[in-house]
Amino acid sequence: MTHVSALSIAALKHAYESGTLTPREMLADVLARIAAWHDPAVWISRFPDEDVLAMADRLAADPAARDLPLYGVPFAVKDNIDLAGLPTTAGCPAFSTMPPGNAACVQKLLDSGAIPIGKTNLDQFATGLVGTRSPYGAPRCVFDAEYISGGSSSGSAVSVAAGLVSFALGTDTAGSGRVPAGFNNIVGLKPTKGLVSTAGVVPACRSLDCVSIFAQTAADALAVLEVIQGEDATDPFSRPSYPAALPSSGLRFGVLAPQDREFCGDTEAEALYDAAIGALQGLGGTSVIFDYTPFRAAAALLYGGPYVAERLAAIETFFDANPGGMDPVVHDIVAGARQFSAADAFRASYRLRALAQDAAQQWRGMDLMLLPTSPTLFRVAEVQADPIRLNSLLGAYTNFVNLLDYAAIAVPAGFRANGLPAGVTLIGPAFSDHALARIGARLHAAAACGSGLQRDAPLPLIPEAVSEAGTIDVAVAGAHLSGMVLNHQLLALDATLVETTRTSPDYRLVALSGTIPAKPGLERVPGFGGPGIEVEIWRLTDAAFGRFVGALPPPMGIGKIVLEDSRLVCGFLCEPYALEDADDITEFGGWRAYLSQE
Amino acid sequence: MTHVSALSIAALKHAYESGTLTPREMLADVLARIAAWHDPAVWISRFPDEDVLAMADRLAADPAARDLPLYGVPFAVKDNIDLAGLPTTAGCPAFSTMPPGNAACVQKLLDSGAIPIGKTNLDQFATGLVGTRSPYGAPRCVFDAEYISGGSSSGSAVSVAAGLVSFALGTDTAGSGRVPAGFNNIVGLKPTKGLVSTAGVVPACRSLDCVSIFAQTAADALAVLEVIQGEDATDPFSRPSYPAALPSSGLRFGVLAPQDREFCGDTEAEALYDAAIGALQGLGGTSVIFDYTPFRAAAALLYGGPYVAERLAAIETFFDANPGGMDPVVHDIVAGARQFSAADAFRASYRLRALAQDAAQQWRGMDLMLLPTSPTLFRVAEVQADPIRLNSLLGAYTNFVNLLDYAAIAVPAGFRANGLPAGVTLIGPAFSDHALARIGARLHAAAACGSGLQRDAPLPLIPEAVSEAGTIDVAVAGAHLSGMVLNHQLLALDATLVETTRTSPDYRLVALSGTIPAKPGLERVPGFGGPGIEVEIWRLTDAAFGRFVGALPPPMGIGKIVLEDSRLVCGFLCEPYALEDADDITEFGGWRAYLSQE
Repeated sequence: MTHVSALSIAALKHAYESGTLTPREMLADVLARIAAWHDPAVWISRFPDEDVLAMADRLAADPAARDLPLYGVPFAVKDNIDLAGLPTTAGCPAFSTMPPGNAACVQKLLDSGAIPIGKTNLDQFATGLVGTRSPYGAPRCVFDAEYISGGSSSGSAVSVAAGLVSFALGTDTAGSGRVPAGFNNIVGLKPTKGLVSTAGVVPACRSLDCVSIFAQTAADALAVLEVIQGEDATDPFSRPSYPAALPSSGLRFGVLAPQDREFCGDTEAEALYDAAIGALQGLGGTSVIFDYTPFRAAAALLYGGPYVAERLAAIETFFDANPGGMDPVVHDIVAGARQFSAADAFRASYRLRALAQDAAQQWRGMDLMLLPTSPTLFRVAEVQADPIRLNSLLGAYTNFVNLLDYAAIAVPAGFRANGLPAGVTLIGPAFSDHALARIGARLHAAAACGSGLQRDAPLPLIPEAVSEAGTIDVAVAGAHLSGMVLNHQLLALDATLVETTRTSPDYRLVALSGTIPAKPGLERVPGFGGPGIEVEIWRLTDAAFGRFVGALPPPMGIGKIVLEDSRLVCGFLCEPYALEDADDITEFGGWRAYLSQE
Repeated sequence: MTHVSALSIAALKHAYESGTLTPREMLADVLARIAAWHDPAVWISRFPDEDVLAMADRLAADPAARDLPLYGVPFAVKDNIDLAGLPTTAGCPAFSTMPPGNAACVQKLLDSGAIPIGKTNLDQFATGLVGTRSPYGAPRCVFDAEYISGGSSSGSAVSVAAGLVSFALGTDTAGSGRVPAGFNNIVGLKPTKGLVSTAGVVPACRSLDCVSIFAQTAADALAVLEVIQGEDATDPFSRPSYPAALPSSGLRFGVLAPQDREFCGDTEAEALYDAAIGALQGLGGTSVIFDYTPFRAAAALLYGGPYVAERLAAIETFFDANPGGMDPVVHDIVAGARQFSAADAFRASYRLRALAQDAAQQWRGMDLMLLPTSPTLFRVAEVQADPIRLNSLLGAYTNFVNLLDYAAIAVPAGFRANGLPAGVTLIGPAFSDHALARIGARLHAAAACGSGLQRDAPLPLIPEAVSEAGTIDVAVAGAHLSGMVLNHQLLALDATLVETTRTSPDYRLVALSGTIPAKPGLERVPGFGGPGIEVEIWRLTDAAFGRFVGALPPPMGIGKIVLEDSRLVCGFLCEPYALEDADDITEFGGWRAYLSQE
C-alpha cells in the first residue's frame, strides 16, 4: 500500500510524471485504504468505487489533462459543500437535497484534475467545533478513538490525517477549518474571507463563512488554495485579492501574555505552544506579547449575541418546518437567535467595529499572531456530557478570526506524552494567506512531527521565488541590503526578502561620492565581464513599491536589472553624472564585501 | 454689508491678509445679516453675539493664529453634531442635552481658526430629506419661501445659501448633505464613509452616517474637508484613506437611461440635467448610459427594510421612554423597525452585498456617475399633506450612495424659469472625494449659476498642482505624453494629467536608437545650460505608480527630475549605456517638438 506521505501533491505529481503510478492504481489504493479504515463516521456519502476508478481512467485517457495542477489528486468534500452526484446533507438528513451542480470551488478542483471521493461528516450545519453533533456519528481523533476529531469539519480532517485522501475541503466560520486540524496533526488553511467563492456552500454565518483546506502540509494547502481562489461574480461575499506581504526578516509575532493563556489545565499543550514560540524565534522572528482583550471580546460575540441569527437566517424556512429534524444541541443554539431584534444585530455590528479598532492598535506592534489552535482536546464522552460549555472552550483562539477579517493557518506543533497532538495557528491580516503559508511550512518543519498518522512524513518548505500577483520584486545592492542603514525603509513597507543572488557579469559597481548615507551605484555595461554584483531581491506590494520608488532621492532610480540567471527584475539605477567620478569597486563583487574589506 | 461671495474662504483669507478686514468686522457683519434674515427656522441655537465677537477678538489677538487654514471663517453646525457650549437637540427638544465637548470634526475646525456661530435646524434625528420634520419650524428654500429647503440638513444649507456663514457642517445618511444643497444652489460635499470622524455626532444609521460640508463652492468644501478628514481611533467607523484618482482626460461618466429617469414631471429639472451632461462632455468627458437597476434596488433598502432598525438602535432607550416626545412622522418611521428580527437584518445585509456586486459590474464602464441631485422639489404644504411619499421621491438618486460606499458631491446646475434651482451630483468610488471635488468645481463653473442667492458669484476652480497623499506625480517626456503611443498605459492606470511644464536647463534629451516604439532619453548634466525639456506631470496612486514602474523595460527607469521651478518630481531616467550613441535632440526642447519637425 502507498505510503501516506506519497499522497502529497508533489509526490503524486512526481509519481505520475515518472510513470511509476497511474491514476487508477492510485485511486484503487485510496479506495482500499478507505475500506480498511476503522471509523465508520468519516463519510456521509461516497461515489461507488467503480465510478471513482472510471474518473481516474477518464483522466488518464485525456492527454491534455496531464499538465493540470491537481492531476489525479484524490480529495474529500465536507458535506455542506455541493458535489454534483451526491446529496448535500449539511449533517442533517431532513435537509438533504441533490445539488444542482458543483460548488464553485469544487468545480475548479475538478477542472484542475483532482478526483473527488465523497462527502465527509460534520457538526450539523457546521455549528460546532467538536465533531459530535451529527446523526451520522462522531468521527474520532485518528490517534485515539476515545477523543473527538474536532469539528465542524470532522470527517474532512480525519480523511486527510488518516491518509485516505490528499486533501479535503472544509468550511470555517468559528474555527471549523482549524480546530480539527490541530487535533489530528495536519494543516488547516483558513483563507481570507472572500478569497474563495462560497457559491454552492450551505451557509452557517454568511458574512463569516470561508471554504477551508485540510492538507498534510502547508505546501499542499497552498497549492489547493491557488486553484480554488479567485473572484466569483455569483458570490456576494467574493472580493478582489490584494496579497499582503509579511517580513521574512525582522518578523514580529504576537504571543499570549501569561494572564491571557487558557489551556484548561493541559500543561503539555502549553509546553508545545511555548516550543512553537521558540521555534519561530529560531526561524528569525521576534516574539512580542500583545493584549488579547479585544480578540477575546470579539470571539465572545460569535455565539453570545445576535450573530447567531446568521445561522437562523441561513435555514429559517427549513428550521420552522422541521422542529424535530435537527440535532437537539444545534437546534437550541439556532433557536436562541429568536430573541434578537434587528436593532440588536446592528448594535452587535457596531460593537464589532469598535473591537476591530482596538485590535488594530494591537496589530501596530506585530506582523502576525502565533496562538494555540485550541486550549486542549476532550473525550467524546466528556463533550456529550457537557456539549455547549466544552465546545465554547475549544473556540477560545479561533472564534474572532473571521469576525475581524484575518487569514489563518493551523499547523501541527508536536505531541503530548499520551500520543495526542497539539497545534498552533498563525493569524495574519486579510490577504496574507500566501505569506502565512510559507511561514507555516517552516514552523511545521521545525516541529518535526510529520503529518497526520505519519509522524515521520517529510515536510517540504514552500519556495519563495515566484512573484505573486499584486507584488513587485526589486533588487537592492547597497544601503538597502539586510542589516544596512536603509534596510528599515523596506521593512517599514512590509517588504519580504525573497532571495540573495547576483547580477549578470555586465554590471559595474561604484562607490558614489558625497552620498549620505554612503551608497553604491550599479551601471550596466553590455559586454563587460565582471564577477556579477551581489543583490538581494525584496518583494513589496504594488503600492509599497510605488511609495519606495517615489521616495528615492537623486541620483538613484529604479529600472530593470539582469540577474546571473538572465531574469529581469526591478533594481537600482543611478544617473550617469553621479557615476562619472565615482570609485570602481566592481572587484569586490558587492557592497557588503566592499564595506567589510574597506 | 459684505458681498456674499466675499464669504468664500479664499476671499476672507485675502481680506484678512491684506488688512482690509478684521475678524471682528467680519463677524459683526455676519451677525447683522443673520439678524436680518427673514426665516426664523434656520437656527435652533446660537452663541450670543458678544461671545462670537469675543471669539473673533481672541483669534485676532493671537499672532500664531494668522496662518491657520480657516482663520476667521464663520461656520454653522447641524444640531446633531456636538458644539461645546450649546445643547445638542437632534431636532428633538426632549432629547436635548449639553454635550461633554466638541465633536471631533468641530474641534478640528476650531483648531484651524474657524468661528462657530450656532446650531442649525434639521429633520428630527436626521430622518428626512424635506426639512419639515422639526418642532423648531421648517426652514424654507432661499429662493421661494413656499418651497421646502430640503433636509435633513435644512438649516445648514440655508445658512450657507443665504450668505450667513462661509460653510456649514451637515450630516448625510440618505442624502441629507446633498438634497438641500440642490434646492438652494450651493455645493454639498458628502465624503466617503469613515473619512471624517463621526465621534460626537448623534447617529442616524451608524454604519452609513457621514459628516458633510455645505459651501458656496467646491473649492471651499474641499478646503474644509482637508481640515476635518483623518483617522480617529475613537470612531469605530473611521478608516484610513487611500485617495482614488479619476482620469482628467478620457473621463467616462455614467448617465441615466431614458427609462431610469424620474423627474416627477419636472421637465425643467430634466433639461438642466441634460445641460449638465452636455457641460461635462464639453469638459472632455464621455457620457455612457448605465443600468440604474442595482442602485435603485439598494436605495429601496434604506427605508424599506431592516436598515431602519439602525435608527432605532441609535436612540432606543430614549424612544422607549418618550413615546410622545417625537415628531409623529419620524416616530412612526423609527417604530417600524420593531417588526424586523436579527435574522432579517442579516438577510438585508446579504441582499446589499449582492447588489454591491451587481453595481460593480456597472462601474466597469464608467469612472463616475452624473445624476440629478433630486427629481424635483416640493412646496412645504405639499410635503405636509403627503409626508412619507414625497420624502421618498426626493431620495431617488441619493439613498444608495452610502449603502454602496461611494463619495459624492452635489453642485448647482442652474435655474428653472420660476427662479428655483436644480442640482446634479457626481458620485465616485470610495476615496475619490478630492478628484470629484475638482471635477465638481469645473461643472459648477460651467453652469455659471453662481452660488446660493448670489447668482453671479465667481466660481473658482481647484488647482491640481498639489500632490495628494497616497498619490505620486511622475514627469513623462516621451512616448507616454498625451496622445503618444504609450499614453494608454497611463490612462489604463487611471493616471491624471496634472500639468505641462519643463525641466531645469540641466537636461539633455537624446533620441535612443533601436527602441520600439521610438523613445527619448533624458540625461541630467549638472551645469548644462539647455532650453529645458517639455514634460507632462501625471498623477497616479501609489499602487498604480508601482505597477507603472514595475512594467518599464530597460533601459528606462524612474528616478527624480528637477523642474524649471526647482521642484523635484519622479521622472524618467535612462541607463548610461543607452545614452552613449544616441542623437542629441536637446535643441528641440521636447520629444513632441522633435517628432513634429523630424
